Amino acid sequence: MSVEIERKFLVKGNAWRGKAEGIFYRQGYLSLKKEHVVRIRAVGEKAYLTVKSTSKGASRVEFEYPIPLEDAEYMLNHLCEKPLIEKKRYTFESGGMTWEVDEFFHENAGLILAEVELSSEDQSIELPSWIGKEVTGDSRFYNSNLIRKPYSKWTNYSR
Amino acid sequence: MSVEIERKFLVKGNAWRGKAEGIFYRQGYLSLKKEHVVRIRAVGEKAYLTVKSTSKGASRVEFEYPIPLEDAEYMLNHLCEKPLIEKKRYTFESGGMTWEVDEFFHENAGLILAEVELSSEDQSIELPSWIGKEVTGDSRFYNSNLIRKPYSKWTNYSR
Repeated sequence: MSVEIERKFLVKGNAWRGKAEGIFYRQGYLSLKKEHVVRIRAVGEKAYLTVKSTSKGASRVEFEYPIPLEDAEYMLNHLCEKPLIEKKRYTFESGGMTWEVDEFFHENAGLILAEVELSSEDQSIELPSWIGKEVTGDSRFYNSNLIRKPYSKWTNYSR
Repeated sequence: MSVEIERKFLVKGNAWRGKAEGIFYRQGYLSLKKEHVVRIRAVGEKAYLTVKSTSKGASRVEFEYPIPLEDAEYMLNHLCEKPLIEKKRYTFESGGMTWEVDEFFHENAGLILAEVELSSEDQSIELPSWIGKEVTGDSRFYNSNLIRKPYSKWTNYSR
């Protein structure tokens, strides 16, 4: 069990590109509830089943288990809600912090998000120049919600 | 991944008692969908997370992963739908087959089910004297459905 404290931002421009090789993620959900989700994720040759509580306010609780890639592929193709999330993740250091930039494809093409994990809720961070608007806590940007309402179908969103 | 072919029966009388020590099961569901369920099960000191497809007609597909008991307890207590299923399982041989008898408690007290796993759908089996009505495929007896409609609340069921 782990507890995550994260801040999430839109990414502007391309100055972040070239800082890391992207790794391809393919993920879907067996369950998408208000209280918690059950996620299947294939990352390169590895795969994971993750249970994440999504209770607002409090920090989220997460349980992650490695599973055989073959199992994950079956569940992604046959059991998970469609569309799947397909994205490349670029992980690198900037300003003493580890940033994860997710570049989405297919139904969510055009969306690029950056996340940073904090050790406490009031930790100060230095924002790189390519960091745009903060979207921490905006549930539209949760990967789980990008399945039911993909970015390409949003209207009235000022990017 | 495994595929299960099972037949399920009501149990009558007590002639099956004493054939095995019962093991206590405590289980709940993170997700209960028509197509598949995600189950958390604690059995003695062990625990498992299981994904089961529930598609009718075809045999069911099942993925089971051992998880730490501590994780299972957290998910059972905080994330799974209530009430939980609490039962004792008695496993023993009879007529060359392995029988599992589940004796339910709490909201499902009074219900005792016997299951036998077959190697093919047309395998013949010898039914012990304590086997009652067959309920294979009767979805009311699925553990997942015994949460939303516990046995103690059934009306109009001829036992």
